[in-house]
Amino acid sequence: MSFHFEILHQSTKSRARTGRIHTPHGIIDTPNFVAVGTNGTLKAIDNQRVDSIGLQLMFCNTYHLLLQPGTEVVRRAGGLHRFINRKMPIITDSGGFQVFSLAYGSVADELKSQGKKKQSGHVRKIDEEGVVFRSYRDGTLIRLTPESSIQAQKDFGADIIIPLDELPPYHIGPARLRHSFDRTHRWEKRSLEEHLKNPANQAIYAVIHGGVDPGLRQESCAILTQLPFDGFAIGGSLGKTKLEMLGMLTNLMPQLPLEKPNHLLGIGDLESLDLCIPLGLDTFDSSYPTRAARHGLLLTREGGLKVERAEYANCFAPIEHGCSCWTCTQFSLAYLHHLFKAKEAAAYSMATIHNLHFMIEQMKRYRELIADNLI
Amino acid sequence: MSFHFEILHQSTKSRARTGRIHTPHGIIDTPNFVAVGTNGTLKAIDNQRVDSIGLQLMFCNTYHLLLQPGTEVVRRAGGLHRFINRKMPIITDSGGFQVFSLAYGSVADELKSQGKKKQSGHVRKIDEEGVVFRSYRDGTLIRLTPESSIQAQKDFGADIIIPLDELPPYHIGPARLRHSFDRTHRWEKRSLEEHLKNPANQAIYAVIHGGVDPGLRQESCAILTQLPFDGFAIGGSLGKTKLEMLGMLTNLMPQLPLEKPNHLLGIGDLESLDLCIPLGLDTFDSSYPTRAARHGLLLTREGGLKVERAEYANCFAPIEHGCSCWTCTQFSLAYLHHLFKAKEAAAYSMATIHNLHFMIEQMKRYRELIADNLI
Repeated sequence: MSFHFEILHQSTKSRARTGRIHTPHGIIDTPNFVAVGTNGTLKAIDNQRVDSIGLQLMFCNTYHLLLQPGTEVVRRAGGLHRFINRKMPIITDSGGFQVFSLAYGSVADELKSQGKKKQSGHVRKIDEEGVVFRSYRDGTLIRLTPESSIQAQKDFGADIIIPLDELPPYHIGPARLRHSFDRTHRWEKRSLEEHLKNPANQAIYAVIHGGVDPGLRQESCAILTQLPFDGFAIGGSLGKTKLEMLGMLTNLMPQLPLEKPNHLLGIGDLESLDLCIPLGLDTFDSSYPTRAARHGLLLTREGGLKVERAEYANCFAPIEHGCSCWTCTQFSLAYLHHLFKAKEAAAYSMATIHNLHFMIEQMKRYRELIADNLI
Repeated sequence: MSFHFEILHQSTKSRARTGRIHTPHGIIDTPNFVAVGTNGTLKAIDNQRVDSIGLQLMFCNTYHLLLQPGTEVVRRAGGLHRFINRKMPIITDSGGFQVFSLAYGSVADELKSQGKKKQSGHVRKIDEEGVVFRSYRDGTLIRLTPESSIQAQKDFGADIIIPLDELPPYHIGPARLRHSFDRTHRWEKRSLEEHLKNPANQAIYAVIHGGVDPGLRQESCAILTQLPFDGFAIGGSLGKTKLEMLGMLTNLMPQLPLEKPNHLLGIGDLESLDLCIPLGLDTFDSSYPTRAARHGLLLTREGGLKVERAEYANCFAPIEHGCSCWTCTQFSLAYLHHLFKAKEAAAYSMATIHNLHFMIEQMKRYRELIADNLI
């Protein structure tokens, strides 16, 4: 089955819609949550479990896989699905985000540093051709270009791939921002051209840039929607606050073609989902639910539950009554509390399974609300 | 089903025998390997998986469970089986081993220190009544007596329990050793008496002491086999080397009644199994296979395999051809190698599943060899 997007229902109340993304490895019901499996596995659980929980799309990071095990190993294994033994769809990014976020630090770090943070020694050179960076594993210099990123993603064989872009630092003057912005769009175009030489049943999503500048976002949409991308990811700086992000997305979303799927990069906390789904966003990736799980924050419909709190030591009920996840049907909060206190790895798996199941159920609930025009 | 031991076959070639230990939670085929689940879980895998691999006996540590979550929580949960959701048999120890090994350090530490290592501040007092130690969790003083250890093990409800004993330091003068030895036997007798007030369908194994002194071992056997224990564990100092242990066991084993099951405490590496099974040992507990797994040492019939070695980066075969474990039927060595390099927790689970499966299969092979009089 080749890639296509089918809209099932357009809410009458908002821009929210339900749909189905068809891929060679199966369907992704939208809106949906995309869990992050950086190294070809989610943290703390195996891919068979992830399949059984019903995660329809897994996000793997080209940057990490490029450095270890490398494209050659994955290609020889028969692609990423075979290498990691995942049956369902995979999306990979270009590697650019990690190269540049390691270079500039996270937006949060950068905000704290008031723009004074210097570029680290990690990125050696950025020019029209691409970026040269030093591997944190063995110190070798690696050149990442639009073409080499796409080639890596061809070797991986993900269902959805992403063109190389530059993540500009948050604190950047207008001239440098303009320069980065223009070059990013040239890189994306080159990525698309490279992809189209051998589509290999993969879809490619453009990455919309422009930060929180409405004019730049508009320009980015205008350029990228002219090109035969299969979908659109919203990247670059998403703003300092949720409100800033919401403003940006409210303005941006109507500029994307309705008939193509879209994805919000790196955002998937519950509050953001509530805010963004009515704007017509289809998919969201975030490591938040799995990371929260490992820190003992369990998601429930009544909010987060901190499993290490003393009140759970004697709670022989499951995390959430009525939850049908593997963890809740077998283990009590008291046992989970004990395992967390004892720092047992099994606890991190159990919590991750619950939080992932919760997210998948939560997205089902969103789809039902949209179908009923309640969102 | 109440506890009893059934001998299926006595080898004509050695003292090795096959048997079945019947317990309220099912059968333990012997000889068998007992995995260590200190805190009520094996490291890196959950109890459902452990059940599905077919581990017939799990060893949990009273010392750890006493400190966290405490006997009261486990009792309120309905016992350890319910608390940790394990269907199959459990054995608990008395807590004494950890109290004293934390006080004196391991035998290996002590050998290095040439007996100069001072008792740590952890144990506050040892007297006829029992031992007082300080909790490493919250600093409270805890008194462990034969009676309180048995009461804790009643609250836990393990299928097999162990009387309180003292683990004497390896470097100890004859007078102090004699004193410890005599007191240990008085403690074991008190433990048995406490147990018999309310057997509650549990079995209790004596712990044979006497270090590497044949006379003391003989005396220990003579005392303990007179008492109505359900089985015998071999504890205390087992010697500095495998050869010393072998000599001690060769001498000791004929002094135990054939009709009762026996257990070798804390030993379960492959070489020791080879040496000890012909002596008539029935069960062995060790954290070796699971700890080795987390360090990337995978057990195969051709010996240990270090998964992080570069040669496995491109090995798309399973860990061992023909292995029917969950890991080998789904994932390649190349993927495991990658996950270990990336320090992903999923790797530790996968390796643990393989090593545990290997041990269980290995014990099946031993039973077959005994049945054929080849051991």
